[in-house]
Amino acid sequence: MEATTHIEQALAAAIESVTVPGCPPRLAEAVRHAVLPGGARVRPRLCLAVAAACGQPDSPAAMAAAVAIELLHCASLVHDDLPCFDDAPLRRGLPSVHRAFSEPLAILVGDALIILAFEHLARSLADQPTLLAPILLTISRSVGMPHGITAGQAWECESEVRVEDYHRAKTGSLFTAATASGALAVGSDVAAWSLVGDKIGEAYQVADDLRDVAASVQELGKPVGRDAVLNRPSAAGELGIDGAIAKLRSLVAEAIEAIPDCPGRAQFAEVLKAEARRILPKELAQRAGAWM
Amino acid sequence: MEATTHIEQALAAAIESVTVPGCPPRLAEAVRHAVLPGGARVRPRLCLAVAAACGQPDSPAAMAAAVAIELLHCASLVHDDLPCFDDAPLRRGLPSVHRAFSEPLAILVGDALIILAFEHLARSLADQPTLLAPILLTISRSVGMPHGITAGQAWECESEVRVEDYHRAKTGSLFTAATASGALAVGSDVAAWSLVGDKIGEAYQVADDLRDVAASVQELGKPVGRDAVLNRPSAAGELGIDGAIAKLRSLVAEAIEAIPDCPGRAQFAEVLKAEARRILPKELAQRAGAWM
Repeated sequence: MEATTHIEQALAAAIESVTVPGCPPRLAEAVRHAVLPGGARVRPRLCLAVAAACGQPDSPAAMAAAVAIELLHCASLVHDDLPCFDDAPLRRGLPSVHRAFSEPLAILVGDALIILAFEHLARSLADQPTLLAPILLTISRSVGMPHGITAGQAWECESEVRVEDYHRAKTGSLFTAATASGALAVGSDVAAWSLVGDKIGEAYQVADDLRDVAASVQELGKPVGRDAVLNRPSAAGELGIDGAIAKLRSLVAEAIEAIPDCPGRAQFAEVLKAEARRILPKELAQRAGAWM
Repeated sequence: MEATTHIEQALAAAIESVTVPGCPPRLAEAVRHAVLPGGARVRPRLCLAVAAACGQPDSPAAMAAAVAIELLHCASLVHDDLPCFDDAPLRRGLPSVHRAFSEPLAILVGDALIILAFEHLARSLADQPTLLAPILLTISRSVGMPHGITAGQAWECESEVRVEDYHRAKTGSLFTAATASGALAVGSDVAAWSLVGDKIGEAYQVADDLRDVAASVQELGKPVGRDAVLNRPSAAGELGIDGAIAKLRSLVAEAIEAIPDCPGRAQFAEVLKAEARRILPKELAQRAGAWM
């Protein structure tokens, strides 16, 4: 999962293409604040890694999908951070968009990024029209209703929720879209790569739960994290820390198992293991031992 | 601009396709509340009227565009109504989405409707791939940055704004997208029909300003409307009531003038005049005289 520089450049170019003179300047500034400079870019790196594993590291269609997915991810973060949801003061070490700009601008930034994601796909894939519909559908389903991240966030507004449904929609769906759209871009096995994405998304969610607990142990001296405060379902809460680590371990193994035959299969597996080590909290890595 | 029943059916079908079992039930209910049963459906009727004027009243591509445009319009209304924008208690005679459900659900409904609009386009036009990119781009530009309705709403967050830029983005852009995508759907003259849409959008905005003032005259006994309260640019505020009526009159004439040659040119002109009569407030129609 390299290519981070290319991803940053492509994201910047997509934003520059619409934040031209004539765009409300504060909206343009807030959009840049929301996306650049960014986070780990896990999802777009995953999308490009699939294309690379299939022998097409420079697929323009995969890059188009990667950019759209990251824009949608950033949109969801901006809206999730709003006062009526998480009321998060910080994001990626900077003030969240509504704190740095305003709540109205944060809502509009999210809307504008969702729109830009689809516009970018249409613009980038206009000359490959038979790819546009399937890639767009794969990505839109991963963020919309009934099972995308918007639906995932909406489960927080329900009185009853199954933890699996919540996580699969809120987190897993965009990972699955990343591998599936990478596979679509290069004509590889979409079903197989979707399964890889499912497992990675689940693993990432478990690691996220573990990070949440680990951070709380450090900060508060007791294992009550933000998810618990917000009364969210959490793997670490349900399985305990050791159970969650075991779950993470088996999910990574299942993801590797699910990789279809392709020129870069072995390398992709190594990348997955490295990524799993990266996302596991240091405090817990010792506890997990040298399993990855 | 008939076909309202078909539009309602198509909107209901688009929503039903994603609010299936597995979708968070309150989100599904809030989405239906936001879209069904709806308003005047002016924009989708306009899109279909262009296709009909060009001899294709049953164009599936035009219907796909019409549905996407109305979903995006509804999304913008739900977000505009939020407490941090207009704080509107009512919409179409019912509680606004954030009042009927919650602010979190209103934000998610807007997001979900934007996503559904593009997903619906991709699904409906998957078998006409060469139409998908141009129609999607036309529609996405009309709602995104730099000149779409999201940007229009963002002008309210700027200290300086030109009234024309504000109205063109906030209201005009989606009218232009309606005529342009109708023309794209049936292979007609996009530039000419875009100009028709520009003029209709401008006329609609002037009529809206006039309605705002007229409603305030009735309710408050003085011509200070919601736009003035919110310190928004308004044609009625800038030109006076008689000036705004004259402006509306000339815009409708310019729209009719701009209609390109097509089998239904005369009928489209009649529809426009009837629509202009419909949207002009009764209190002001007398003042305007029998000019339409």
